[in-house]
Amino acid sequence: MNQLQVKDTINAHQKLIEHRLTLFFDEKLNKCSNISPLAKELVDSLKEFSLRGGKRIRPILAIFGYKAIKEQNEAVLQAALAVELMESFLLIHDDILDQDDFRRGYYSMHKVYELKAKKLYPDSDAAHFGRSMAIMAGDLLASFGSECITRSDFPAELKIKAIDKFNRVIINTAFGEVMDIVSELKPEVSELDIIRVNELKTAIYTIEGPLHIGAILAGASRQQLDILTKYAIPLGQAYQIHDDILGMFGNEKKLGKPVGSDLREGKKTILILKALQLAKQPQVKSIMAALGNKSITREQIDEIRNIVLESGALDYCQNLVRQLSEQAKTHIRHSGFRPEGKSFLLAIADYMTQRDK
Amino acid sequence: MNQLQVKDTINAHQKLIEHRLTLFFDEKLNKCSNISPLAKELVDSLKEFSLRGGKRIRPILAIFGYKAIKEQNEAVLQAALAVELMESFLLIHDDILDQDDFRRGYYSMHKVYELKAKKLYPDSDAAHFGRSMAIMAGDLLASFGSECITRSDFPAELKIKAIDKFNRVIINTAFGEVMDIVSELKPEVSELDIIRVNELKTAIYTIEGPLHIGAILAGASRQQLDILTKYAIPLGQAYQIHDDILGMFGNEKKLGKPVGSDLREGKKTILILKALQLAKQPQVKSIMAALGNKSITREQIDEIRNIVLESGALDYCQNLVRQLSEQAKTHIRHSGFRPEGKSFLLAIADYMTQRDK
Repeated sequence: MNQLQVKDTINAHQKLIEHRLTLFFDEKLNKCSNISPLAKELVDSLKEFSLRGGKRIRPILAIFGYKAIKEQNEAVLQAALAVELMESFLLIHDDILDQDDFRRGYYSMHKVYELKAKKLYPDSDAAHFGRSMAIMAGDLLASFGSECITRSDFPAELKIKAIDKFNRVIINTAFGEVMDIVSELKPEVSELDIIRVNELKTAIYTIEGPLHIGAILAGASRQQLDILTKYAIPLGQAYQIHDDILGMFGNEKKLGKPVGSDLREGKKTILILKALQLAKQPQVKSIMAALGNKSITREQIDEIRNIVLESGALDYCQNLVRQLSEQAKTHIRHSGFRPEGKSFLLAIADYMTQRDK
Repeated sequence: MNQLQVKDTINAHQKLIEHRLTLFFDEKLNKCSNISPLAKELVDSLKEFSLRGGKRIRPILAIFGYKAIKEQNEAVLQAALAVELMESFLLIHDDILDQDDFRRGYYSMHKVYELKAKKLYPDSDAAHFGRSMAIMAGDLLASFGSECITRSDFPAELKIKAIDKFNRVIINTAFGEVMDIVSELKPEVSELDIIRVNELKTAIYTIEGPLHIGAILAGASRQQLDILTKYAIPLGQAYQIHDDILGMFGNEKKLGKPVGSDLREGKKTILILKALQLAKQPQVKSIMAALGNKSITREQIDEIRNIVLESGALDYCQNLVRQLSEQAKTHIRHSGFRPEGKSFLLAIADYMTQRDK
């Protein structure tokens, strides 16, 4: 499968998933309209948030985790929504943690409700109201996600295993988040810590979890799940490092977020850590001054970009992405997976580590 | 079963549950110590929070929901932890929403981490850090709760049904929370709205959910679950109104929270709504002025207590509690449940609506 074909496959599946997401939320809206108009309003916000955009990489991986073992059926499309809703849930909570006001080209959930409160209840603590609604919105979506598995058309034994994995992904992501929050406050963070956070927050959450949930529902063996893990963990690391590079050197318009946000937030990425290791003393000082500087200027960001480039940190990270991605693909090549699943997993590894947005 | 016996039964089960909670968290601590010291620290906080106190009413109801259908076994004790962890999860998030700094005689979770941040990272936004950690702590506990069911020793079909109920309880509680947050901002709230919130936030979450989860794992029929619902919903309403009364007229030391907190938070309870309906105009003004007044004085609270008493609102609510509790018990009396479950469900209905703390 070449990169054009993988993009087509992704596009086709995105449409499928968005169609099913719409149906899912419409059914929820229907059911909760008798609870209270507020419940309906909240579910409406969740529908808008979930359909507003997103790469749908996780449900696509769940579907292809299934296809690696078994021929696709209707039920897996429904169950795959679980990981998409999980993503929305975690993004909503993550945006509160990161105090991000924008997501997918519009306001983040807490900001949506903060603005509503400002309009409807001008005397209220609008920021607090926004956060409160977003915390509940996330909690709701987590359960909606779990429901997509419990109510899917698979044998109960497989669904229990899939739910168990669903829970493990949330647990690992929450641990990753906690490490992430604290690492922004600590002056020193080790490379091992960053790799650990990337494993928990990206590799398991974005790749291994969805693949496993799909494969489990297809009745995958322990050995087959292990192969998917050996593919997912290095690919997840590569995907995250590529993401860090895009965050510093990518195209703002394509990314939909300003370049250098990681710097502004004080996020210590492998790219930055490598630059700190390789750069000279005055340049190290510049990086340290930029990290977590909320009012960083465009010029300062450009300066850091030059340091990252000239120190060799960019080269180092680009090489690492290639190596990790190759390592991931080797396990798929040697697997006995179905050809349809195999070729897609090989192709999407390139797609995920070469994308420009 | 008389009230002394029901208290003994509750005490004995509290000890059982606390013992199992300790084992549960110790196993988690063991497993997550290789993830990161921070993960371990967070799980330690969750253990402390969960063991610090609590009536354990929910897991006890889950156990007796089971016992109404089938003889108790080891597995149900483990699965019952699910509803206890769900409570801790929802309390942690609820304390953020209500900006409550105390819970179970010590700091609420977000406050625990706010104080840690003040000490360890004096330059950080400690309140934000505290909230962020508490959001993640709650998310983690929700998944831990679900795991208590997925990993329990029951047939997969029953576990899937129990997980489905577990999710429904969280969904309903989140809807209730949202209605509650908004009702504090709206000038007018109807009695129907309050009853709805009490159904979602108390009757389903505290009583029906736990009973159903236990009964489902015992293989209860649709009809048996319906009987439990007919018991749980009025009992939950009665329990909440009794709680509102305690919040205004109870003993602060026994309750562990200051009398009048509902007034301070602007929470419109049935008790307050009834007083607004029954009291004379100047007294209505006093109540309206007290609602949501963060700096309300002891004298003002005493004044409102007098109004609630003299208007007949207290009498009305006390009668309502008795009626609803009787209504609940009738369904159990006419049920074909096992005697052991039956006598406990009858006795705990009195306990829950006559307790002084």
